Amino acid sequence: MLIKMDKLKSSNKPRKNRNLRLTDIGEFGFIAHFSPDFLSGLPKNIKGIGDDCAVIPWKGRQRLLVTTDLLVEGVHFLKEKIPAENLGYKALAVNLSDIAAMGGRPLYAFLSLAIPPETEVNYLDEFFKGWQKLAQKTDVMLLGGDTTRTVEKMVINVVILGEAEEKFIKYRAAAKPGDIIAVTGQLGDSEGGLRLILASQAEPPSGTAEKYLLKRHYCPRPHLEEGYFLAHQSAVRAMMDVSDGIDSDLRRIMEQSGCGVEVYLEKLPVSSALNKCSQKYGWNLMEIAAAGGEDYCLLITVNPKKFSELAQKYLKRFKRPLFPIGSITDKKGDFIYLKNGRVVNFKKSGFDHFKS
Amino acid sequence: MLIKMDKLKSSNKPRKNRNLRLTDIGEFGFIAHFSPDFLSGLPKNIKGIGDDCAVIPWKGRQRLLVTTDLLVEGVHFLKEKIPAENLGYKALAVNLSDIAAMGGRPLYAFLSLAIPPETEVNYLDEFFKGWQKLAQKTDVMLLGGDTTRTVEKMVINVVILGEAEEKFIKYRAAAKPGDIIAVTGQLGDSEGGLRLILASQAEPPSGTAEKYLLKRHYCPRPHLEEGYFLAHQSAVRAMMDVSDGIDSDLRRIMEQSGCGVEVYLEKLPVSSALNKCSQKYGWNLMEIAAAGGEDYCLLITVNPKKFSELAQKYLKRFKRPLFPIGSITDKKGDFIYLKNGRVVNFKKSGFDHFKS
Repeated sequence: MLIKMDKLKSSNKPRKNRNLRLTDIGEFGFIAHFSPDFLSGLPKNIKGIGDDCAVIPWKGRQRLLVTTDLLVEGVHFLKEKIPAENLGYKALAVNLSDIAAMGGRPLYAFLSLAIPPETEVNYLDEFFKGWQKLAQKTDVMLLGGDTTRTVEKMVINVVILGEAEEKFIKYRAAAKPGDIIAVTGQLGDSEGGLRLILASQAEPPSGTAEKYLLKRHYCPRPHLEEGYFLAHQSAVRAMMDVSDGIDSDLRRIMEQSGCGVEVYLEKLPVSSALNKCSQKYGWNLMEIAAAGGEDYCLLITVNPKKFSELAQKYLKRFKRPLFPIGSITDKKGDFIYLKNGRVVNFKKSGFDHFKS
Repeated sequence: MLIKMDKLKSSNKPRKNRNLRLTDIGEFGFIAHFSPDFLSGLPKNIKGIGDDCAVIPWKGRQRLLVTTDLLVEGVHFLKEKIPAENLGYKALAVNLSDIAAMGGRPLYAFLSLAIPPETEVNYLDEFFKGWQKLAQKTDVMLLGGDTTRTVEKMVINVVILGEAEEKFIKYRAAAKPGDIIAVTGQLGDSEGGLRLILASQAEPPSGTAEKYLLKRHYCPRPHLEEGYFLAHQSAVRAMMDVSDGIDSDLRRIMEQSGCGVEVYLEKLPVSSALNKCSQKYGWNLMEIAAAGGEDYCLLITVNPKKFSELAQKYLKRFKRPLFPIGSITDKKGDFIYLKNGRVVNFKKSGFDHFKS
């Protein structure tokens, strides 16, 4: 994911406060604080900070897409909880998801690793096995990176270069009031898997539903084909991937497009596995579906007049449905949850990397 | 710097040893272990792992250069010892140096930061001030990155995209026996600065010579203009930047070009400040000049018939000399130090990120 722009236009930039700490302003406050300096003066044909990828002129009508993600042990993954092979797979998958979110094709990858010196070579063999499995499936060539030791925690940085034709790139800023909001996959499974992992001392429970959620957490499938298909449909206006949970991600679309959002909680698509585990472990199913992160399906807004045609075309192509979950409104900055037509309050709000 | 390929062709790949740790094989062993899987199957017009930058087809005759560097607190920098402004400057500088080493022009940057939440916003203001100072001077646009919190140590990842015309790109693999080895700057100053920092409890000594070395350590100047100029000279064959010290860096040229190296210790260019401090603090001047890292000048090998013409042209253009320091030999894998014509043993060997 690329630097995001939450609160970018906030007028009270806390420039002068010397004792302000990152915890006080949060990740999006950080970006609001620093982005303006870097956004000014960019040529019009370049899209920098604020979307899933940066977009740069390339060959002819093609544009180069660039995305980078920094994954830190203890923040983004728990090394003792995720098998090395899954970690290698996932490090690539979450970056490919950003390329999918623009409607692009991935081309090249750069992988940097900071590794504690006592790490077993076998651990890294497994890591690369997982990486290669997905890289081969998606035709991504590893062209370089950097390797270094680290004092304590393992760090992974992935960069992906991809390409897309200019006129088919979808941005977060293109949503319009009246658009139907839809997602390409079920929500909350990854968060469910994470909860199982965090709650278990040793091995997580091994029931069928539990295994399903764990797999969805460990091995998210980047929706590359879906993103490419949707990018070529004029009915689709805004697109991004679901990385922080729709509660957080939809706010990015809201800010970039200057609109409001209504989400129909009863329409959030959830798997039977998540349903089952929510009952079994007493989880709030809707909270997980709305605010759980890392599903890495796609979130789109669609011209309402063309939604049903698009949904049919999509179903025919992928044998899976598009799930409508809400609408874009003209109430700028208003995020409303409805349950069977009634407004509900919903406390949990997204995942912020600096606030706990 | 890009992943390097030391020992890549080693025939005894330790694939099967399950208890082998990174400390056992070192950084270059790590790369030897994993690179082959990623080098096979690359198209001919793409240069991946093994040089300062990856080289990818771009517009027409232009090639896209990509470099990435992962900097970890406690390994690459000591947060309490380097002022934030210098850290921001240096994080960009060391990556620009890789673009310089290929003879390219930098275009776009991506900066990812993992930051402890208690970090003061003011610290980051200073960091960006240093970054921007160099970015504006070198026309580099920041187009994105990633921000996240970290549990303990700060981590910085920088990616630079640059461009160069295909026929003017210089590689590490182009050195030929008989070539004169030269550098574009004085050696060892950065290592001298680092020694002063590490030896001092609070503020490092503030004499003129000391201040000079500290500045060279904190604010290395990427030799972009020099690299661009040298890339356009047919007399220049191989080129790379001095990041780990010539003792280590020349080995990369040796491996890539399949040749040997002779270095004339008495010819290593050193500053009067380094000379003075070496006497004052009892440092081994030649060891620092040969094995100290982070000077970020350029290391080239030159057609011996054209060296004096090139040196004159260079002096005229930059008002600074090219420093010849040795020769490329046909004794593959042989690294010899000579002092006034006599072979000397030289223990210290480069900086390896996994071995101490």
